[in-house]
Amino acid sequence: MLWVHFMCLWFISLYGLHLLYREYSEILVKRIQQVRNLRHRPDQFTTLVREIPVCGEHEARGCCVDHFFSKYHPYSYHSYKMLYDGKNIEDLSKQARYVHEKVQGLRKKCEGKKHGKESDECRDDLLKITGLEEKLEELCRKIRQLQSEDMLKGKELPVAFVTFKSRWGAAMAAQTQQHTNPLLWITEMAPEPSDVSWRNLSIQYKILPVYKIGVILAATLLTIFFAVPVTAVQGIAKFEKLKKWFPPAMAIEFIPGLSSVVTGYLPSAVLKGFIYIVPFAMLGMAKLGGSISKSKEEIKACNMVFYFLLGNVFFLSLISGSLLDEIGEYVSHPKNFPSHLAALVSSQADFFMTYILTEGLSGFSLEVLQPGLLIWDFIKSRTYCRGKEKDLYLYSLQYFRIIPIVSLSILIGIVYAVIAPLLLPFLIVYFFLGYAVYINQIQDVYETVYDTCGTFWPFIHHYIIVAIILMQITMIGLFGLKSKPAASVSTIPLLLLTIMFNEYCKIRFLPAFRSHSIQNAVENDEFDEKSSEVEHSFDKAIEEYLQPCLVPVSFTQSDSSLYQPLITSW
Amino acid sequence: MLWVHFMCLWFISLYGLHLLYREYSEILVKRIQQVRNLRHRPDQFTTLVREIPVCGEHEARGCCVDHFFSKYHPYSYHSYKMLYDGKNIEDLSKQARYVHEKVQGLRKKCEGKKHGKESDECRDDLLKITGLEEKLEELCRKIRQLQSEDMLKGKELPVAFVTFKSRWGAAMAAQTQQHTNPLLWITEMAPEPSDVSWRNLSIQYKILPVYKIGVILAATLLTIFFAVPVTAVQGIAKFEKLKKWFPPAMAIEFIPGLSSVVTGYLPSAVLKGFIYIVPFAMLGMAKLGGSISKSKEEIKACNMVFYFLLGNVFFLSLISGSLLDEIGEYVSHPKNFPSHLAALVSSQADFFMTYILTEGLSGFSLEVLQPGLLIWDFIKSRTYCRGKEKDLYLYSLQYFRIIPIVSLSILIGIVYAVIAPLLLPFLIVYFFLGYAVYINQIQDVYETVYDTCGTFWPFIHHYIIVAIILMQITMIGLFGLKSKPAASVSTIPLLLLTIMFNEYCKIRFLPAFRSHSIQNAVENDEFDEKSSEVEHSFDKAIEEYLQPCLVPVSFTQSDSSLYQPLITSW
Repeated sequence: MLWVHFMCLWFISLYGLHLLYREYSEILVKRIQQVRNLRHRPDQFTTLVREIPVCGEHEARGCCVDHFFSKYHPYSYHSYKMLYDGKNIEDLSKQARYVHEKVQGLRKKCEGKKHGKESDECRDDLLKITGLEEKLEELCRKIRQLQSEDMLKGKELPVAFVTFKSRWGAAMAAQTQQHTNPLLWITEMAPEPSDVSWRNLSIQYKILPVYKIGVILAATLLTIFFAVPVTAVQGIAKFEKLKKWFPPAMAIEFIPGLSSVVTGYLPSAVLKGFIYIVPFAMLGMAKLGGSISKSKEEIKACNMVFYFLLGNVFFLSLISGSLLDEIGEYVSHPKNFPSHLAALVSSQADFFMTYILTEGLSGFSLEVLQPGLLIWDFIKSRTYCRGKEKDLYLYSLQYFRIIPIVSLSILIGIVYAVIAPLLLPFLIVYFFLGYAVYINQIQDVYETVYDTCGTFWPFIHHYIIVAIILMQITMIGLFGLKSKPAASVSTIPLLLLTIMFNEYCKIRFLPAFRSHSIQNAVENDEFDEKSSEVEHSFDKAIEEYLQPCLVPVSFTQSDSSLYQPLITSW
Repeated sequence: MLWVHFMCLWFISLYGLHLLYREYSEILVKRIQQVRNLRHRPDQFTTLVREIPVCGEHEARGCCVDHFFSKYHPYSYHSYKMLYDGKNIEDLSKQARYVHEKVQGLRKKCEGKKHGKESDECRDDLLKITGLEEKLEELCRKIRQLQSEDMLKGKELPVAFVTFKSRWGAAMAAQTQQHTNPLLWITEMAPEPSDVSWRNLSIQYKILPVYKIGVILAATLLTIFFAVPVTAVQGIAKFEKLKKWFPPAMAIEFIPGLSSVVTGYLPSAVLKGFIYIVPFAMLGMAKLGGSISKSKEEIKACNMVFYFLLGNVFFLSLISGSLLDEIGEYVSHPKNFPSHLAALVSSQADFFMTYILTEGLSGFSLEVLQPGLLIWDFIKSRTYCRGKEKDLYLYSLQYFRIIPIVSLSILIGIVYAVIAPLLLPFLIVYFFLGYAVYINQIQDVYETVYDTCGTFWPFIHHYIIVAIILMQITMIGLFGLKSKPAASVSTIPLLLLTIMFNEYCKIRFLPAFRSHSIQNAVENDEFDEKSSEVEHSFDKAIEEYLQPCLVPVSFTQSDSSLYQPLITSW
C-alpha cells in the first residue's frame, strides 16, 4: 500500500513542478507583453542612482551626476533630478494644512450662523479668519522660499533619478557597475512614480543594512513569540475570569446557549483577531525596511506574513509546545525532523479540514463585507475625525494579507495531498469561492495603485516550492515511521530534484523579473520609433518623478482632488 | 586568566579583520593599476558569448552574432570570431605530428648510417621516408581543407568571442542581460587569449551544471574518503608485512638503525606522498569542471585543495576516527561542535608545532629542489619519450598547490594564536623562509603564463576568514569547557561581526574583482585616446583569439618554437 503512496508522491511532485514551470513561463510572457503595453511609463527610461559623491568644485551633488553620466553614458544620457531632504517643508505644509482646515471650519461655522443672530461672534470669527489667512499666506511664502533652488541646494540627498534617451540606455545603466567602488554610484531600475517610497530614499545607504536586519529580526521575534501574548490574552478571556473581573458579563449566562458559544469561540476569536492584525503590523515593519518602492515593501511584508502563518498557523497547530522549543529541538537534532513532522501531520488532518472550511467561509465573507475597513472608518469618524468631512476612500488590494493566506491553503493542500486526499475537495471549493470573490473585488472594489508587471509571481512560486518540499519531507518521515526505509531513501532524490528545479527556475526566469533585458529594451525603443512617439515619452519622464515636498502649495482653489470617484473604470 | 584570553581573542580577531580590510583595498588598487598597465590586452575589448541560437535564414550562428550585436550594441560593436568543433582537425594533426616525428627519426638514423656501410638499408629507409612524406603532405592537405571556411561552417559551436571598439562597450555587454531568456546570449568577460580553456568552451552550456556538480561531488568524496586508501597502504607498508611479501627487504635489518627509520617514517612518508599527489588530482578534476579559463580552473582546484587539507591534515590530525563519522556526528549534534573542537585542538598543539617545523623545512627545500619535476622528467625520458629529444620545460607557479598549503599554515597559526602562542615564533620562521624561497622561485624559476590581476586574493581572504571563524568557534568551546559561560556567550557577537565583515567585503570589493567597472573602462579608453593608440588595440584583439585547431599547419620549417629559453627576462 505504501508504494502506492510513493508513486502518488512522485506523480504529484513532478506534475506540480511541471505546472509551476509552465505557469512561470506563461507569466514571463505576460510580463514582457505588459512591459511593452506600458512602454511609455517613465520608469522604463529612468534609473535610480544612490550614493552620489559631492563634487569638489561646486560643493553640490547635482553637477556631479551630470558630469558622470554624460561622460560614462554619452550616447543615451538625458537629464537628472536630485532628491532633497524635505522634512522642513513637510512640517510647514502640515502646519499650513492645519491652519487651512481651521479657516474652513470657522468659515463654515460663520456661514451657518449668518442666518442666526450672533453676528458679534461672527465678527470675531471673521477677524480670526483674516488672522489665520495671513498666517497661511506667510506659511505658503516660507514653503515657496524653501522650495526655491537656492535653498534646496544645501539639502541635496545623495540620491537622484536619471533619465535616458532610450530604454536601452536605462537598462544598460541599471545593470552595470558604474564606479570602481561598488558602493558609490549604485544604479538600479527606478520604480514607477506612484510606487516610489520617498521617505525611504532619504535613508542613508550605509545604514540600510541595519534597517533590513532590524526588520528581519523583529519579524522573526514576532513569529517565534507570537504565541505568548495570544495565550496570555486567551487565558484572561476565559469566561470564568471574565465574570470575576467584569460582573455585567454574567448576563450572558441568562441567555440560553450563548454561554457555551462564548466559552467555545472566545479563545479562537482572540487568535483570529491577533492573526488578522499581524499582516498590517508586518507591513508597518516592512515600511521601515528601507525598500525603494511600495511594491517591494509589500513583497517583503508578503514574505514575512507567509513565514509567520507557516509558523503560527501550520506548525503551531501541529505541535503542542511553543515554537521556540520546537525550533531548538530541530536545530539540535535535525535528523528527527522528518519523522516527527510526519507523526504530527498525519494526526492533524481533521483539524486542517475544518481550518480550510472555516477559513473559506469566514475569510471570504469577511473579504466581501470588509468589516475591518468598516470598523476602522467608524472609529475614525467617531474620534479624531469627528465632525470633519469624510474622505471617501479607495484602497489597493492587500497583497501582503491575501497572498500569504491563499498560499497557506495551497501549502496545506499539497502537504495533505498524499496523506489525506479527502481534504482536496474542500480545497477545490475554497479556491472556486476565492476565485469568484477576488475577481469581483479586484474588478469592482480595489484600485490599482501600481503595476509591477508580475514581480509577485516568483515569490508565490517560492511558497509553492516550500509546500512541495514540506510534503516530501513529511513523506520521508512517514515512510520511515511505517518502516519502509527503501521508500524513504528513494524519496530523497525527489527532494534534491525539487531543490534543483527551484535553482533552475531562479536562473531561467528570475533575471527577467529583476531587470529589463537589452533585447526587450531595444525592441520597445524600435516600437516607439516606428510610431515616432519616443520624443514625448522620455521628455516627460523626469517631470513625473516629483518629490511630494516639492509639489507647489496652493490653498486658494477648492481641493477637489481629495474626492476621488469611488469606482473608476480601467 | 581566561578573561586575558578573551581580550586576546577580541584583539587578534579585530586586528586581523583590520589587516584583511587594508590588504583587500591595497590589492584592489594594485589590480586597477595592473589592468591599466595591461590595457592593450585583447581581453579588455572582448566578451565571450555563449548559447548563440542558429539563424533561421542562413542556418548558421555567425551571422546571428553579427545581427544581434550590431543591433543591440550599435555604438561599440566591432567584430566577432566563432568557435568551431575541431576534434577532426586535432586528430589529423596529431597523426601528422606522429608521421613527422617518424620521418625525422628515420632521417637521423639514415644520416648516422651514411658514414657506415649499410647503404642498402639506408635506401629502404629513404623509400620509407618518401612514402611517409607523401602521407604527411596528404594529411596536411586534409587539415587545410578542413580548416577552410566552407567546411568549418557546419561545425560551429554556439560560442563566440565578440570584440568591441572600446573597453566601455565590452564592459557594458559583459555585465548586462542580453536576451529575455537569460539562458541565451550569455555574455561574460573574456579571459586573455593564452588563458582560454578551449576544450571546455566546446562543452554544451546546458550540461555544464552536471560537470560542475560532478566535480564538487568527486572532490568531496575524495576529501571524505581519502583516509581509507591511505590507511590501507599504510597497513600494507608496515615493515613486518613488507618482510613477508618482499623478502629482500630483510636486508634492511642488517644495516643498524635503518630498520627503525623505515618503521618510523614509512607510514608518514606514504601519507606525505598521497598528499603531494592530491593537488594534481584536484587540478585534473577542476579541468573537467567546464571553466572557461585556466586561471579559473586553478582557482577551483585551489579551493578544493584547501578544503581537502583542512579536512585531512587539520581535522584528521585532531580526531581519532574517520572524517565521515565526525561529520555525521556534527550534523546530528551541531551544538557539541565547539566544545568537541576545543578539547581536540588544545590537546594537539605540540603536533602542529612539529607539523609547521617539518612542513617549513621539508616543504620549502622540496620546492627549491623540485624533486617531483625531476622524477617525472626522469621517468618520462626513460619510458615513452625514450630516445626522443627532450623538450625543455618552463612551468607556471603551481598556485593550486602552494596557496592552500600556505593558507593551512596561516589557519593553524590563527587557531593556535590564543591557545598556544608558542607556536607563533615557529610560524614566523616558516613565513620568512617561505618568503625567501618563493621570491626566488617566482623571479627566476617559474614562467608567467597568465595574469589575472589579483583575482586569487578574494579566495585567500576567504581562507583567512575561515581560519578566524574556526579560532572563534574553538574559543567558544574552550570557554564553555572551562565553565566560563559568560565569556563563551560574549564571543558570539565577535563571530557574528566576523561573518558580517566578510559579507561587507563581498559587497565592497568583490564586484571589482569580477568585472571592470564602467568608470575604469572609460578612463582606460581615454588614456588610449590621448596617446591615439586605440585603433591598434581593438583591431588586433580578435586575431589573438585563435583556436588551436585553426593554427595553420606546416612541417617544413624546423620547429624551433618548441625550444624556449629556460630563463626569460620579464
